[in-house]
Amino acid sequence: MITKAKESEENMYDCVIVGAGPAGLTAAIYLRRNGLEVLVVEKNAPGGQMINTPRIENYPGFPYIDGASLALSMYQQVKDLQTPFLFSEVIDIRKEEDFTVYTKNQEIKTKTVVVACGMKHRTLGLLEEEKYIHKGLSWCSLCDGALYKGKDVAVLGGGNTALEDSLYLSKIVNKVYLIHRRDSFRAEHYLVEQVKKEKNIELCLREEVQSLQGEDHLEQITLKSGRVLQVNALFEAIGFEPNTNFLAHLGVLNASGFVIVDDEGKSEVDGLYAAGDVISKKVRQISTAVGDGAVVATHLAKRIQSCHLQEM
Amino acid sequence: MITKAKESEENMYDCVIVGAGPAGLTAAIYLRRNGLEVLVVEKNAPGGQMINTPRIENYPGFPYIDGASLALSMYQQVKDLQTPFLFSEVIDIRKEEDFTVYTKNQEIKTKTVVVACGMKHRTLGLLEEEKYIHKGLSWCSLCDGALYKGKDVAVLGGGNTALEDSLYLSKIVNKVYLIHRRDSFRAEHYLVEQVKKEKNIELCLREEVQSLQGEDHLEQITLKSGRVLQVNALFEAIGFEPNTNFLAHLGVLNASGFVIVDDEGKSEVDGLYAAGDVISKKVRQISTAVGDGAVVATHLAKRIQSCHLQEM
Repeated sequence: MITKAKESEENMYDCVIVGAGPAGLTAAIYLRRNGLEVLVVEKNAPGGQMINTPRIENYPGFPYIDGASLALSMYQQVKDLQTPFLFSEVIDIRKEEDFTVYTKNQEIKTKTVVVACGMKHRTLGLLEEEKYIHKGLSWCSLCDGALYKGKDVAVLGGGNTALEDSLYLSKIVNKVYLIHRRDSFRAEHYLVEQVKKEKNIELCLREEVQSLQGEDHLEQITLKSGRVLQVNALFEAIGFEPNTNFLAHLGVLNASGFVIVDDEGKSEVDGLYAAGDVISKKVRQISTAVGDGAVVATHLAKRIQSCHLQEM
Repeated sequence: MITKAKESEENMYDCVIVGAGPAGLTAAIYLRRNGLEVLVVEKNAPGGQMINTPRIENYPGFPYIDGASLALSMYQQVKDLQTPFLFSEVIDIRKEEDFTVYTKNQEIKTKTVVVACGMKHRTLGLLEEEKYIHKGLSWCSLCDGALYKGKDVAVLGGGNTALEDSLYLSKIVNKVYLIHRRDSFRAEHYLVEQVKKEKNIELCLREEVQSLQGEDHLEQITLKSGRVLQVNALFEAIGFEPNTNFLAHLGVLNASGFVIVDDEGKSEVDGLYAAGDVISKKVRQISTAVGDGAVVATHLAKRIQSCHLQEM
């Protein structure tokens, strides 16, 4: 009955979810199970950052799983609920009475929006970085690690991702240089201990990347100390920033570009919600993203269902 | 190094987690991966309310799974991190400089506590309920449903659990009477639609249970309207209440007995944290419990690790 009501209103969705990472997919599960008309818009592959994570050991229920498999499993769960997906980039969201979500090719009408588009990897900001993309410079050890079998590579960073990448790569490549600007890691103790045990991971602490060299493909890295590393690849794992330029004009972002929401996931704009890594918060994990997704969807489902009742 | 420091301090734990449901188990995963000394205390089986849930379809990553399997999987994940478990009931927690957690047989010293002991099922409050426990009265369709194969049973309630129980039982028993005091359900639309399709589920709306009858075993239920249902079992699914009497003297509970915490899971008592269904909040799901567990553990790990550094 709800479905029909929506169809008659010029394909107005109850909710458009921007982003198909764990937060967006969880919100979709809850909204669809509540009978709402949902469209998920994703510009890359479903799964968000999970697909770049070789081995996940801290998502409860899976002692370990590769991120791509977990992503696929969540995606299939949402597909099984007959949820439509649109693979395109959202470039603007406008609000009048309802919302219009603009992708590169389409305008989509919806009563509410859940922004769950996560974060993108940060870069060093070196001029030559662009030259080496897909030619030695990578943000995804799982995707690109196998290209460097038996070679020497470098990983940059000091958090969980950098250490997980180093461990993963150490099984494939000849040698991993782990470059970190401090002398201690902010990664979990457990990971640090594992990295220290690996004989083919060399720690380059209190070091920074000065420049990248190589004719067509990356061949060496010069560090700020002057040391030169002969490597065929650099995996950058130096953090993330939200991808929220399209929301700037709505006044819902903090100074770093994260969406400010209350404990129900509501922003200052009525009907605009957010969940997962894209919101202003302290802990960003798959576990917390799925929690956010469930919270936002539960509140949204109540809101929309009470609107439907009023319309009858 | 951290491990040794703890062993020398008279078996002082970094953290005792009270409760091995999804929140407590997730907190354990994160704390152990950060190298902290953790003890999990659980009075029943690991998994909390999950073990009473026949089919879980809304925990991201598993299109469907029975609750017992998900519980076992999370438990194994924590065991694999060499986490000790104590199967006993916590009856008191006292704080001086550190905490002492009292179980029926033991006193345990710990620097911090995470309360994650969830909720227990609510009863009707009828005098004769006790008589029929294990004799027709049940709060667990998964545990007891098979006892009533081919028989007629009743389910009481209007939320997700009552409807999930009805669906599960409808596949096993001859007939299910679903008794609910209102004329609409607060369960998810999706479940309501499924229940309405099942020919052997009869809805008894705007009805309440007046009394239970039967010699040695439940034989019939009298409703407030006067109608009598000939059934061999009543599955009560009328909600939950927290099991937090042991915390009352610490002044951290709200009027309903839930633990009041901030967005890091911290209570008013320094070092006492809480996560999952036991905290004062609006959405209680496995997804949100694991989110809570990750948040509380991340903050706790930072707190304890900074203490360790100060001690060196």
